[in-house]
Amino acid sequence: MLRTHTCGELRKSHEKQVVTLCGWVHRRRDHGKLIFIDVRDRYGVTQVVFVPSVSKEAHDVAQTLGPEYVIQVTGEVVGRSAKNVNTEIPTGEIELCASALTVLNTSKVPVFEIDSETEVGEELRLAHRYLDLRREKVSSALKFRHKMCASIHRFLDEEGFLNIETPVLTKSTPEGARDFLVPCRLNPGTFFALPQSPQLFKQMLMVSGMDKYYQIVKCFRDEDLRADRQPEFTQLDMEMSFVEEEDIFALTERLFKAVLKEVKGIDLKTPFPRMTHAEAMQRYKSDKPDVRKDKTDKSEFAFLWVVDFPLFKYNEEDKRWESEHHPFTSFNKDDMDAFEKGDFGKVRSRSYDLVLNGNEIGSGSIRIHDRHIQKKIFDIIGLDPQEAEKRFGFLLRAFEYGAPPHAGVAYGIDRMTAILTGLDSIRDTIAFPKTQKGSCLMTDAPSLVDEAQLMELGIMALNKGDSDA
Amino acid sequence: MLRTHTCGELRKSHEKQVVTLCGWVHRRRDHGKLIFIDVRDRYGVTQVVFVPSVSKEAHDVAQTLGPEYVIQVTGEVVGRSAKNVNTEIPTGEIELCASALTVLNTSKVPVFEIDSETEVGEELRLAHRYLDLRREKVSSALKFRHKMCASIHRFLDEEGFLNIETPVLTKSTPEGARDFLVPCRLNPGTFFALPQSPQLFKQMLMVSGMDKYYQIVKCFRDEDLRADRQPEFTQLDMEMSFVEEEDIFALTERLFKAVLKEVKGIDLKTPFPRMTHAEAMQRYKSDKPDVRKDKTDKSEFAFLWVVDFPLFKYNEEDKRWESEHHPFTSFNKDDMDAFEKGDFGKVRSRSYDLVLNGNEIGSGSIRIHDRHIQKKIFDIIGLDPQEAEKRFGFLLRAFEYGAPPHAGVAYGIDRMTAILTGLDSIRDTIAFPKTQKGSCLMTDAPSLVDEAQLMELGIMALNKGDSDA
Repeated sequence: MLRTHTCGELRKSHEKQVVTLCGWVHRRRDHGKLIFIDVRDRYGVTQVVFVPSVSKEAHDVAQTLGPEYVIQVTGEVVGRSAKNVNTEIPTGEIELCASALTVLNTSKVPVFEIDSETEVGEELRLAHRYLDLRREKVSSALKFRHKMCASIHRFLDEEGFLNIETPVLTKSTPEGARDFLVPCRLNPGTFFALPQSPQLFKQMLMVSGMDKYYQIVKCFRDEDLRADRQPEFTQLDMEMSFVEEEDIFALTERLFKAVLKEVKGIDLKTPFPRMTHAEAMQRYKSDKPDVRKDKTDKSEFAFLWVVDFPLFKYNEEDKRWESEHHPFTSFNKDDMDAFEKGDFGKVRSRSYDLVLNGNEIGSGSIRIHDRHIQKKIFDIIGLDPQEAEKRFGFLLRAFEYGAPPHAGVAYGIDRMTAILTGLDSIRDTIAFPKTQKGSCLMTDAPSLVDEAQLMELGIMALNKGDSDA
Repeated sequence: MLRTHTCGELRKSHEKQVVTLCGWVHRRRDHGKLIFIDVRDRYGVTQVVFVPSVSKEAHDVAQTLGPEYVIQVTGEVVGRSAKNVNTEIPTGEIELCASALTVLNTSKVPVFEIDSETEVGEELRLAHRYLDLRREKVSSALKFRHKMCASIHRFLDEEGFLNIETPVLTKSTPEGARDFLVPCRLNPGTFFALPQSPQLFKQMLMVSGMDKYYQIVKCFRDEDLRADRQPEFTQLDMEMSFVEEEDIFALTERLFKAVLKEVKGIDLKTPFPRMTHAEAMQRYKSDKPDVRKDKTDKSEFAFLWVVDFPLFKYNEEDKRWESEHHPFTSFNKDDMDAFEKGDFGKVRSRSYDLVLNGNEIGSGSIRIHDRHIQKKIFDIIGLDPQEAEKRFGFLLRAFEYGAPPHAGVAYGIDRMTAILTGLDSIRDTIAFPKTQKGSCLMTDAPSLVDEAQLMELGIMALNKGDSDA
């Protein structure tokens, strides 16, 4: 153990104790005889004072310290005089009077200041993410994200949910977005796909009897990246059997109430208000209305359920009906007439979106568990039986063996973190995000690979690749 | 809400209550006037009795029920007479006298029996995993796995660890095993790799000051599959700053003690015994000795630290030194002489393995945080500076900006689950595993994809692929 305490925990009550801290040189003021070093770690900052009369040796070494050097310092906790108390930091009533100092590592001068709220260009921040993560903005978002996820894990465990992992190497069943593909070396010419979501697997888990499933899981979409999207993103994925809309709403509201209480100390008002899709479009011209009183207030959290989406939308270009949500979505029994008459535009789906401050943070639906209706939906959206079999055959087959009524929902963890911490970009909630062009500036991924690797996989690259792109 | 109770919770104390259950037809005994149906869900089995005098309608429907039909049944909880009490199940003191029955879904006759401990061939089980998951063996392993992971999340949160996600789309830095590659559409000719472990990212997090990191995370190795390996597997990944071996050992022992107490009610004896690699090889001819008294006792859990591994091993074929653990592993300062003299075979690494009942369930090391020593190691294992820069340049650059002393470890979640539940194969601890040939029999992945998808990615498959392989 190299330290006895962290840089955030020393208080007046530790006075006279001899402690050892480890951390980074955050700030330094050299008054000749007295050298003040603020040493920083994840937990805070502590002021250390070096006085030659206490330790000439430590004072000498302290003179050599540069910004972001990693040090280990031992000394006595001393109360500060009233006029020197710093009320802005929790350790501001004390300082450490150093008797020993070891330099654990040196540092080049950082390419941007850690101790500053100056805006730094995002490219520079992402290229040196290990420095950026030392800054308050991103590090506090990661801490918040951890706390939120820990709270979610605890809540769902207590509610009887099972955290079950689903595969990352899956079958390509493109719907909506493009799949990322993974060439298979053991069977060249075939490919795995990275999952756009665990949708099919969680429905299989319901067929398996695992009636309350959740997972905080990575999903992948190979899209042309828009403003604030990531090729890999994280969702809280849930599915339940023997439930209806009200169960999903109630569970979600209990979850958010518990989490916001725990991580933000907020007493959330539940149930959340609801609005039909038709009303949202009419009143707000948006399917994700921001119902805050003041649209710029980042401390108000206005949740809203949007319900009664249309089941289908008509694709004018291709002259065909498409699923508005996804093709496994059930529909309102009251609209059975319209469904059977082919008046598809009138059929309301049993899907729901959760909107927070004008952002869709989650969406889900009651699923179809009847294979005949499922086949009919595929038929309406023009998925012919062979294609349906090829892509979703395993789901249709599973549905022949006692599929229970089930429903689910997924919430975006990146977006939730951003909104709850008042950040504008989800990139600031992710330790190592990709740029808007989908590359990692720190590791330089994606990159060229050896020809030999491609040969083994039985593929050939048609382009040479531009490693600077 | 389609049910008021689960099939596992009714007791004598519920007598005379009218309840609604949902579940699968598990067993059925038709005595003409009396029909007994055992209805099953994730939580247990409840006996339901259909009597014409109570509900002629429900009795009629009950006659049509086949195995694995999904039903919703309402009735009164009735105590069983003493001679009919079933002491083998928790609900055995009561039965449900049905007044209403709805068939929520029918089922084809399952391809193997759910209610039986008969061994079923693994191919059939994996092809119909949704049925296999209804059986006791695998479903109880998944429940155990959830409980274990919930316990790990809670413990590490309380210890101040941050759960931080690292990327799945990363840079190819092949070491040891082959990388799975992901062609990048936005920059054709370049590739992402799936991480063999978050090794480099967790070291970057230490440079970032996140001094206690953990993640329960998928890792990927494109290996020729051996007996009980999976191309994607899950590890509990951890890294800490300002620590030494004793801190890692103590933390691990606290973790396993807490988890085994919570999920198995076992009071684990700590600290775990330790053995040097040299002693293990000499006494057991194995670097993962099984130190149980009775090597076949599945209820004894014998943990053992193996320490003092050699830092390098000599590759006779290529006539060069290789890292025994990985090239970021630090070494024992006492062996500095041997290191500097080039007597590399004598240098002991600061790595450690955790062995449980003869299985390596985890391994880790104190890392190098000095970029000069790191470069020297690369030099010894014959990684030339250009290649080192190309593969690990970002780590070496990060190390220039104040890298703290750090260490880490990773534990195999699949293997831990298997050993703690007494299962022989990790496949039985995974909801949707791959076969030993690396394919998914349920979804038929990997599979052929459209030529158009490959064109978009800028790659060509050199083989036609065999979708049955």
